[in-house]
Amino acid sequence: MSCDIGLYGLAVMGQNFALNMASHGFKVCVGNRSPAKVELTVNRAKDEGDLPIVGSSDVENFVQQLSKPRKIIILVMAGKPVDDTIAKLSQYLEEGDVIVDGGNEWFHNTLRRSKELEPKGIHFVGMGISGGEEGARNGPSLMPGGPKVAYDMIEPIITKCAAQVNDGPCTAYLGPVGAGNYVKMVHNGIEYGDMQLTGEVYDIMKNVLKMSNDEMAAIFEEWNKTELESYLIEITSKILAKKDDVTNEGYVVDYILDKTGMKGTGRWTIQEAAERSVAAPTMAASLDARYISARKDERVKASTILKGPEMTSAEIPVHKSQLLDDLKSALYAAKVCSYAQGLGIIKACSNDMDWNVNLSECARLWKGGCIIRAAFLQKIQDALARDATLPNLIVDPVIAAELNDRTAAWRRVSVVAIGYGVATPALTGSLNYFDSYRRASLPANLTQAQRDFFGGHTYERTDRDGVFHCAWTPAHHSIGNINERKAGEV
Amino acid sequence: MSCDIGLYGLAVMGQNFALNMASHGFKVCVGNRSPAKVELTVNRAKDEGDLPIVGSSDVENFVQQLSKPRKIIILVMAGKPVDDTIAKLSQYLEEGDVIVDGGNEWFHNTLRRSKELEPKGIHFVGMGISGGEEGARNGPSLMPGGPKVAYDMIEPIITKCAAQVNDGPCTAYLGPVGAGNYVKMVHNGIEYGDMQLTGEVYDIMKNVLKMSNDEMAAIFEEWNKTELESYLIEITSKILAKKDDVTNEGYVVDYILDKTGMKGTGRWTIQEAAERSVAAPTMAASLDARYISARKDERVKASTILKGPEMTSAEIPVHKSQLLDDLKSALYAAKVCSYAQGLGIIKACSNDMDWNVNLSECARLWKGGCIIRAAFLQKIQDALARDATLPNLIVDPVIAAELNDRTAAWRRVSVVAIGYGVATPALTGSLNYFDSYRRASLPANLTQAQRDFFGGHTYERTDRDGVFHCAWTPAHHSIGNINERKAGEV
Repeated sequence: MSCDIGLYGLAVMGQNFALNMASHGFKVCVGNRSPAKVELTVNRAKDEGDLPIVGSSDVENFVQQLSKPRKIIILVMAGKPVDDTIAKLSQYLEEGDVIVDGGNEWFHNTLRRSKELEPKGIHFVGMGISGGEEGARNGPSLMPGGPKVAYDMIEPIITKCAAQVNDGPCTAYLGPVGAGNYVKMVHNGIEYGDMQLTGEVYDIMKNVLKMSNDEMAAIFEEWNKTELESYLIEITSKILAKKDDVTNEGYVVDYILDKTGMKGTGRWTIQEAAERSVAAPTMAASLDARYISARKDERVKASTILKGPEMTSAEIPVHKSQLLDDLKSALYAAKVCSYAQGLGIIKACSNDMDWNVNLSECARLWKGGCIIRAAFLQKIQDALARDATLPNLIVDPVIAAELNDRTAAWRRVSVVAIGYGVATPALTGSLNYFDSYRRASLPANLTQAQRDFFGGHTYERTDRDGVFHCAWTPAHHSIGNINERKAGEV
Repeated sequence: MSCDIGLYGLAVMGQNFALNMASHGFKVCVGNRSPAKVELTVNRAKDEGDLPIVGSSDVENFVQQLSKPRKIIILVMAGKPVDDTIAKLSQYLEEGDVIVDGGNEWFHNTLRRSKELEPKGIHFVGMGISGGEEGARNGPSLMPGGPKVAYDMIEPIITKCAAQVNDGPCTAYLGPVGAGNYVKMVHNGIEYGDMQLTGEVYDIMKNVLKMSNDEMAAIFEEWNKTELESYLIEITSKILAKKDDVTNEGYVVDYILDKTGMKGTGRWTIQEAAERSVAAPTMAASLDARYISARKDERVKASTILKGPEMTSAEIPVHKSQLLDDLKSALYAAKVCSYAQGLGIIKACSNDMDWNVNLSECARLWKGGCIIRAAFLQKIQDALARDATLPNLIVDPVIAAELNDRTAAWRRVSVVAIGYGVATPALTGSLNYFDSYRRASLPANLTQAQRDFFGGHTYERTDRDGVFHCAWTPAHHSIGNINERKAGEV
């Protein structure tokens, strides 16, 4: 049989995405370096309703089973395995065929590969896939970037396989090659931020309010019916309520070691934020939290040396129902600021690279399928659709009003956390972001003065145009730069 | 005359460093792409005491004037100009000669250049220079990394030209090529943090305590006689007291636009922190503050849309003398945490690269000449000398005691800032760092549970060894990963 599409790389994500496509009636040919996974996937296809999947353990044969122009999605480990797979496949591919890399790949690698495939006329698409194993099977969020002609070839398939929400499938043409990986990278950075923010709220509930797991699970369940409705809030409730299945005593979450693993995308997001001169403190705080979490042995030792306030006897009075309300508001506001940061990173790179990424579409295709899916993405989508030139999400009138309504609560939460010694780097990082961005005048005048004092970096003035250097001390006159720059305007 | 050393690249830093070396009796040959600067430097040498400097506007002639093995310091813009300069010089150099790049260069570029020069037998040293123009002239902090044999060749010169402190010159052999640039890069990251922390303290003094510039200048002057004694505190006092020399009305600092420029090293420090999985929130906050400061127009607009608390009527009571004392303590504690982060980055990279950088020596050579020179570096030097295996500076008993003594004040300052809406990302970022690192248990257990829930990332347990995956919901059983991983231990 001639297949509609090929999928190469059959770890769980690959298996599930192949089954997803086949469930929508597309004939899929699957391939993998080790043949066992091919057999496994073909068997799963039979078990899950005789789905139209054929397998091939030979690369040439795999390619030959595809109808032309060929479309192949590869789902292997990012980095060298992608290069190896492309090399193997491309020797049998022809001009006009398409390779789609569905992995979490560094966008510069995708740009490089696209260039390498150009002489052969093979199109290359980097398409981020979010939703984990479950999403891959039942409808993920798909973030493709590549030549429009290649997107058009895969569009009939991916629009069917993506999660479906109120206004369509959770996918869209995001821009030229690289844009898809980039949007997915930032999606993951935002995911890191959301998870850290939830963790900080949990920490306060547990260690300040001394709430039980069941109580906390109930609160998160309740919050999931409000403006906080989202996949991560939903699973947090389920996680907190889950009994331990190893000891059959107590709750799983209390047995889980507080060491958090990580992959590349979160780290890249932070490095890219710096590269693009975009402040991203919430996401940075979540990365830092993971690094510090990994140093468990150091922390256990440090806890005997460094003193915090006694958490039970802080001077700051705490009223439970008020603090819970405040936590809800603070979490919402902090999340909004984190999304604003993420969207700001995409915008900055899109401008630098001339990608013309539609930010409203990013928010729209995150509404379903992916880990950060959340009701409030509709508001973000709407805000960015109202004004695509918005300098920052948080100055949209609707979003701004929501933040303004919550700042008092947000401040109270931060004060409690600081008083009780509960680290809330992401919650207060977001608040500081808000408090910096809304200030017409920041103390950066002093910073710039220092730079001019010790490095002759010059400064601008508030009262007139021009570039200035101050003769801060008599000694400044004897320094060589005075040969080139006189005090005052230059 | 045969010269002891050559200096190529005569912007102000180059001119001044050449004059510095000549002041110590070394015969210096200076060169530059445009001959005007050569003449200028030679004239300055005459003016400043008939110093032994000769100039050459021809590269071949420049090299020929140097005694063998030749030693050349280049001080040109980082990046391509360094490559161009090396290419020009190296065609006339011989095996055993040394090129020292004194610029703020990305260490990977230095590593590459070192490799490129290897076939010719030319040694390459990357040497960070801190102290600005004044330091370059009168004694900077010098951070060299390169082959030991090359260091030995330049040692007699650089130990004389460096700033001198209680226990010797502010230079030392820091390690193989790349290590010097790296230490200088982190030095700059720390400098960014120090400047931002000072700015936040200034912001609170100005906007919460409504202090005049003269009052603030007096406080910084007073603080400069205490444990905060440092170059940046000293110049902050001078800056605040400086009258405006453009209008002759008011103070310069009040006319300076709150937009802060930046160069690459701060950004790189943050990117490297992420690369090495080291939390560096204080330095990251200072970078973010610069990015946000640059968006002046956006902020002015945002200030009309986003609401802060009225700074004059906050609910949090403020007592001036107490708050000033608290600010002093908070600034000190936050600075210590920032230095701990910076040293942690150096340590992590040194481990990855097998550089064996002596952190105590880093602290020692920062005690003079450079922008971050400060009395408390002696304590840091001592702490790291006492125990070179210290996992983190802040668990040294002496340092820890200083922090523990200041946490109450630090929390009070953070609470005031949050209450008044004065952004203090670096001060509270440092506090959150402290509060994270000293916690034996962080809420990372929830984060890891979420990762296992949506991505099957597994978890470790507190009660037994092994790697676990939880069947969080009945749906988890139907997911493909259960084919490979059973619930419970795998």
